[in-house]
Amino acid sequence: MSELPPLPTGFQAAGLHCGIKKDPSVFDLCLFSSNRPASLAGVFTQNKVCGAPVKVSRERVPRGTARAVVINSGNSNACTGDRGIEDARWMTALTAKSLGCDAEDVVVCSTGVIGRFLPKDVLEAGIPAVAEQLDDSPQAFNNAARAMMTTDTFAKQTTRTVDVASTTVRFSAVAKGAAMIGPNMATMLSVVMTDAALSPQEADAMLRHSVNHSFNCISVEGHTSTSDTVFLFANGAAGHAALDDSSRAALQAAIDEVTMEMAQAIIRDAEGADHFITIDVCGARTRDEAHCIAKAIADGPLVKTAITGADPNWGRIVSAAGYSGVELEEEDVSLWLNDVLIYKDGAPSSFDTKALSQSIRDNRDVSIRLQLTHGDAEVRFWTSDLTAEYVRLNSDYTT
Amino acid sequence: MSELPPLPTGFQAAGLHCGIKKDPSVFDLCLFSSNRPASLAGVFTQNKVCGAPVKVSRERVPRGTARAVVINSGNSNACTGDRGIEDARWMTALTAKSLGCDAEDVVVCSTGVIGRFLPKDVLEAGIPAVAEQLDDSPQAFNNAARAMMTTDTFAKQTTRTVDVASTTVRFSAVAKGAAMIGPNMATMLSVVMTDAALSPQEADAMLRHSVNHSFNCISVEGHTSTSDTVFLFANGAAGHAALDDSSRAALQAAIDEVTMEMAQAIIRDAEGADHFITIDVCGARTRDEAHCIAKAIADGPLVKTAITGADPNWGRIVSAAGYSGVELEEEDVSLWLNDVLIYKDGAPSSFDTKALSQSIRDNRDVSIRLQLTHGDAEVRFWTSDLTAEYVRLNSDYTT
Repeated sequence: MSELPPLPTGFQAAGLHCGIKKDPSVFDLCLFSSNRPASLAGVFTQNKVCGAPVKVSRERVPRGTARAVVINSGNSNACTGDRGIEDARWMTALTAKSLGCDAEDVVVCSTGVIGRFLPKDVLEAGIPAVAEQLDDSPQAFNNAARAMMTTDTFAKQTTRTVDVASTTVRFSAVAKGAAMIGPNMATMLSVVMTDAALSPQEADAMLRHSVNHSFNCISVEGHTSTSDTVFLFANGAAGHAALDDSSRAALQAAIDEVTMEMAQAIIRDAEGADHFITIDVCGARTRDEAHCIAKAIADGPLVKTAITGADPNWGRIVSAAGYSGVELEEEDVSLWLNDVLIYKDGAPSSFDTKALSQSIRDNRDVSIRLQLTHGDAEVRFWTSDLTAEYVRLNSDYTT
Repeated sequence: MSELPPLPTGFQAAGLHCGIKKDPSVFDLCLFSSNRPASLAGVFTQNKVCGAPVKVSRERVPRGTARAVVINSGNSNACTGDRGIEDARWMTALTAKSLGCDAEDVVVCSTGVIGRFLPKDVLEAGIPAVAEQLDDSPQAFNNAARAMMTTDTFAKQTTRTVDVASTTVRFSAVAKGAAMIGPNMATMLSVVMTDAALSPQEADAMLRHSVNHSFNCISVEGHTSTSDTVFLFANGAAGHAALDDSSRAALQAAIDEVTMEMAQAIIRDAEGADHFITIDVCGARTRDEAHCIAKAIADGPLVKTAITGADPNWGRIVSAAGYSGVELEEEDVSLWLNDVLIYKDGAPSSFDTKALSQSIRDNRDVSIRLQLTHGDAEVRFWTSDLTAEYVRLNSDYTT
C-alpha cells in the first residue's frame, strides 16, 4: 500500500464493514467522492435485465457531473422491482446528506446475490459512517477497493500520473470482478478518478474508447452480468493548462492503461483458472471483425479446455474463428501459440508438439495470435481457461 | 437389434473396420446406398472453416439425386487443403465403382481428428469390402451406425412407418455425435432414408424444416464443428399414391420425429453430462427470438453449472435471456424449473428451494420453461449440463 501515491487532488475514498455480509472482518460498503463537482461518464451492462443501481445511475449520467459513487457488495439489488429502484435512490440520498450535496449528484453500484432486497437498517448506519472515514490516503483507497470485492481474491487498484504542461495530473482506478463466476452472479465494477479537467463530453468519449480496449476485451465465460458498471470522474482539481492534442492523447493513454490493467487483473483473478490467455487477432478488415473472432476464441469451451490440458490444438482455435460469424477462408488464417507458428495459410505447420505443450504447462501466461490477410485492423483480448475447479466453484456453491 | 424392421425398400447399409482406427474391433467405415437414384437433400455446417467432404458433398447436392453416402470415422479430412478435396472425391469414385454408378452420385462424410490426410491404403481395400457387405437387415444398419461413432458411447438409430393411402412408407435414421467434445473435434452426422417419393425440392424443404426443429435446437457448448452434415435420401421405392396435403404432413411429421429423436440421442450421449435439459421458450415475438433466448440459456456455462449443482438459480437463467440480444424487460419474463414457478413477471416467486433442488439432484431430466408476454412463437431446445468430468475429458485427452 505504502508505495501508492494519494488519490488525485480533491478525491477521497473509504471502505468498511457495515453488516450486509455476515463476517465482520469483510468489508461491504465503500464511497468515492470528489470535493467539487466532477465531470462524470458511465458505461453500463448491455444486459436487458439490469440491476436497480444501473437504472438509477444510468438516468443520472446525462447530467454530466457528479460528486460521488456509493458501492456495496453482498447484495446486487437486481431483480428487485420498484422497491429496488427506491432503495437505490435512498442510498444516494443518504450519501448526499452526509456529503452535503444533492441526491442526483451521487451514483450507485451494488454487487452480490440477486433477487434480495437491500438491508436498509445496516446501510442506514453504514453510509454516514463510511462518509465519516473519507480520506485521500492509499489506505483509505485500499479499504474502498476491498469493500467492492465479492469472489475476488485480491483488491484491484492502480494509479498513473501524466504531466500536462508541467502540471502533474493523477489517475486512480479501482475494479472488482472475478468475472461472473461468483456464488450467484458476480459483476465487474470499476471507478476511475482523475484530477484532469475534462468536459462531460470529453470524459464520455475517453471512457468509451478505454472500455472498448479493456473491459470489453475480457471474457471468462461470456456471461454478461446485470450490474456491470464503469465510471470516470474528472474533477479538474489539478489545475492544469488548457488541453492540446498531445496532452489529450496522453490523458487518453493513461485512462487506457489503468482500465487495461484493471481488466487484466479481473482475468488474473478468474477463479479456478490455471492460465491467463492473451489473444491477438490481427490483419482483420475491421476492429469489430477482429473482436468477434477474438471473443469466439475466448468463449470457446473447447479452446479453454485445450489450454487447460496444455494441448496446442489449432483445430479448436481455427474452427472457433470459423463460427464467429466473420467471413473467412481457411487460407486466410495463420496461427501462433506462445509465438510458435502452428497453422499457416490454412494448413497445420510442423512444430514440436511436446515442447509447445510443455511451455503451456510451465507458464501461467499463454498467448494466441491469429493472423488474417484481410486488412490491418486488430484487437487484443484476455481470457482464462476452463478448469474442473471452475465447474466445482460454480456448481457446489449451494452446499 | 432384432426388434428393428429392415431398411426402407431399396436401401442397404454396411459397416466394418477397415483400419483407420487402430483397434480392429472398432468399426470406422460405412456405406448407405439406394438401389435406384434417390432424391437427395443436405444441410451442412455453417462454420466458414469446413472439411473437404462437406465441400465435395455440398457441390453435389444441387444435382437433386444420389445413390449413396460413404462415411468414415477416425479422420475428418478437414483442414487438409486441395489434397483433402482430391481424397474426398477419390472416396466417392471408389464407392461409385463398387456400386456401378457415377462418382457424382455419391456423397461423403468424414469425422475424427482433423489436419491429417486420409489413409488411402486402408480405404482402397475397405471401400470395396464395405460395398460387398451391403444388406437391408437391422444388423447391417447397426454395423453402419457403429462405424460412424467417434466419442459416442452408443449407436444412434431409429425407424418410423407412415401409411400413405394404404401403402406403408418407411423411414430409417442414423446419427453420430457426442457434440464437439471429442479428442480433437467431434461432429454431428445424420442420414435419413425413406422409400417415400419426394422431389428434390420437397426433400430439401422437409429436411430443412426438420433440422430447424431438431439438430439446430441442440447444443452442448456452442462449438460448431467443421463437418456437421445431415442427408435425407428419398427413393420412392414404396410405390405409394401421389401425395396430398395430409400425407405430406404425415411424412413431414415422421422426418421431424426421427431427426428429433436423433438430436436428443446426441445430447443424451454428451460425455461427462449429468443432466439432460429441455428448454422451452414460449410467448416470443418470433421463433428466431425464442431460439436466440433458448440458445443463450443452453450455452450459458453458469446456467449449466447451476444445474450440475442442483441449484434452481433463476438469476443465471433470466440474465442469460437478458444478454441473448432479444429486446425484453424483466417484467415480461416468467420461469418454471421442473414445472415449479420460480420467477413471475420479473420478480422471484416463493418456492420450496430444497425440494426443487432435490428434484434436480434425483432426476437426469430437467425442464426449463421461460414464458414471455411478447407473442405466441415458441421453441424447444435440448442441452446438457457442464461437469468437472466434461472438463477432464476435454483437457486430459492428450495424455
